[in-house]
Amino acid sequence: MTPAYVHGYDPRENERLQDQAGTLVELLHGDTQYPAGSRVLEAGCGVGAQTVTLAQRSPGAHFTSVDISAASVAEARRRLQAAGLHNVAVQQGDIFHLPFEAASFDHVFVCFVLEHLAQPARALALLKRLLKPGGTLTVIEGDHGSTCFHPASAAAQAAVQCQVTLQQRAGGNALIGRQLYPLLVQAGFDSVRVLPRMVYVDGSRPQLVDGFTRKTFTAMIEGVRGAAVAAGLSSAQAFDAGVRDLHRTAEPDGVFCYTFFKGVAHQGAPR
Amino acid sequence: MTPAYVHGYDPRENERLQDQAGTLVELLHGDTQYPAGSRVLEAGCGVGAQTVTLAQRSPGAHFTSVDISAASVAEARRRLQAAGLHNVAVQQGDIFHLPFEAASFDHVFVCFVLEHLAQPARALALLKRLLKPGGTLTVIEGDHGSTCFHPASAAAQAAVQCQVTLQQRAGGNALIGRQLYPLLVQAGFDSVRVLPRMVYVDGSRPQLVDGFTRKTFTAMIEGVRGAAVAAGLSSAQAFDAGVRDLHRTAEPDGVFCYTFFKGVAHQGAPR
Repeated sequence: MTPAYVHGYDPRENERLQDQAGTLVELLHGDTQYPAGSRVLEAGCGVGAQTVTLAQRSPGAHFTSVDISAASVAEARRRLQAAGLHNVAVQQGDIFHLPFEAASFDHVFVCFVLEHLAQPARALALLKRLLKPGGTLTVIEGDHGSTCFHPASAAAQAAVQCQVTLQQRAGGNALIGRQLYPLLVQAGFDSVRVLPRMVYVDGSRPQLVDGFTRKTFTAMIEGVRGAAVAAGLSSAQAFDAGVRDLHRTAEPDGVFCYTFFKGVAHQGAPR
Repeated sequence: MTPAYVHGYDPRENERLQDQAGTLVELLHGDTQYPAGSRVLEAGCGVGAQTVTLAQRSPGAHFTSVDISAASVAEARRRLQAAGLHNVAVQQGDIFHLPFEAASFDHVFVCFVLEHLAQPARALALLKRLLKPGGTLTVIEGDHGSTCFHPASAAAQAAVQCQVTLQQRAGGNALIGRQLYPLLVQAGFDSVRVLPRMVYVDGSRPQLVDGFTRKTFTAMIEGVRGAAVAAGLSSAQAFDAGVRDLHRTAEPDGVFCYTFFKGVAHQGAPR
């Protein structure tokens, strides 16, 4: 996996993830709360963008947040400290070789991680082992193929496709959101329930126009311009035209839709 | 407009619309209710698939349901009678030349109609004239560009695109759902609010697998096979491969997503 396509490694990317987390907190995490005393593993915490939200919403739960990148772990610790949160232990670790015994956790949380893995089903099966009977795994992933915008634009779609192709070449899958249900079933989970969370943005929602259409989605696509051109997936001119058309959807008469998928699955019968 | 692409003209199409209405009633209409005594215009009622639901949910409201097709009007009357509903007057009429005075109605309802019109904004402006000050217009439309399924399939996407192209050639727009917000604003409505209604179907929802993925969406695409092949948009073989791949998404490990858009807008300030 090329570091360029792992989120959270540069300041601009960090800013984007923060914008995303800030704008989408309610939509994505509003219904995730863990009981006091429960032990929760966050697998792939990155720079802690979701960790702060998780820990604030479940102040009595004890979180263990793991990321493969030492730099991300350091940044996540800094953020948790800045937020005055003391219910999270952050440590470096590989999701495929976690140093925990079977049935160590009541719950597992995975957000924007499977999209980067060549073996997402294997990761889920390994995480399932770490759950106590009746425990839950919550997973949230986007799906770039769910984008739907007005005015429609073939150039914009081609620019989005560059990101999909680059992520695929890096061993990931930017279209993984729609696959959560079969992946969770395949990994052996019970009572799998997946619900889509669509971000719908039109001129009546200026906060989302700025926070999501511009600063989250379009910024992410703009971020792969260099890589897309270098890989020969697009000319600079064609890519820039696509990005212009994405910005066009943020005008007062534009519309932008993107769907995240959130799954909750159980290890054995639900408690 | 070619009658072949106007819904509701043949028995199989009628069955499809009934399946659609039966499966999606809560999702699409669960939040539409009109007060007792209010006068409601349903513009483009077709064979009455939505009319029965509307009239049942607002038993004290007085509906006037209009359709351009005499055959559809007759079928809608038959259905209302069979359902024992007496709060609907059905009459034949053209949405662009309705025989009503300005400010005749408290509310207007439009469902799966704008997608067939070459001038949807003009239709909305004309309907707005018929509303009393403070009255609402509710509009529901699909958007075939919102489809998102697993396993992904270029052949299936191409078959869907045939339907989009045929509808466009007939003067309509199968991608109109995403445009409701700008269309309503352009027509001069106030307090425009659009909310997407995604139908998400996976193996845990067998009723939707059968009622929506198979009998609504895939059946609709299958229905244009002859026209698509005759128009040279696809070979029969390629089209059939696409339809097979759509059916594949209805297998236990498949996923299918489609988004309807529902808008509610006001004539002047909301009451």
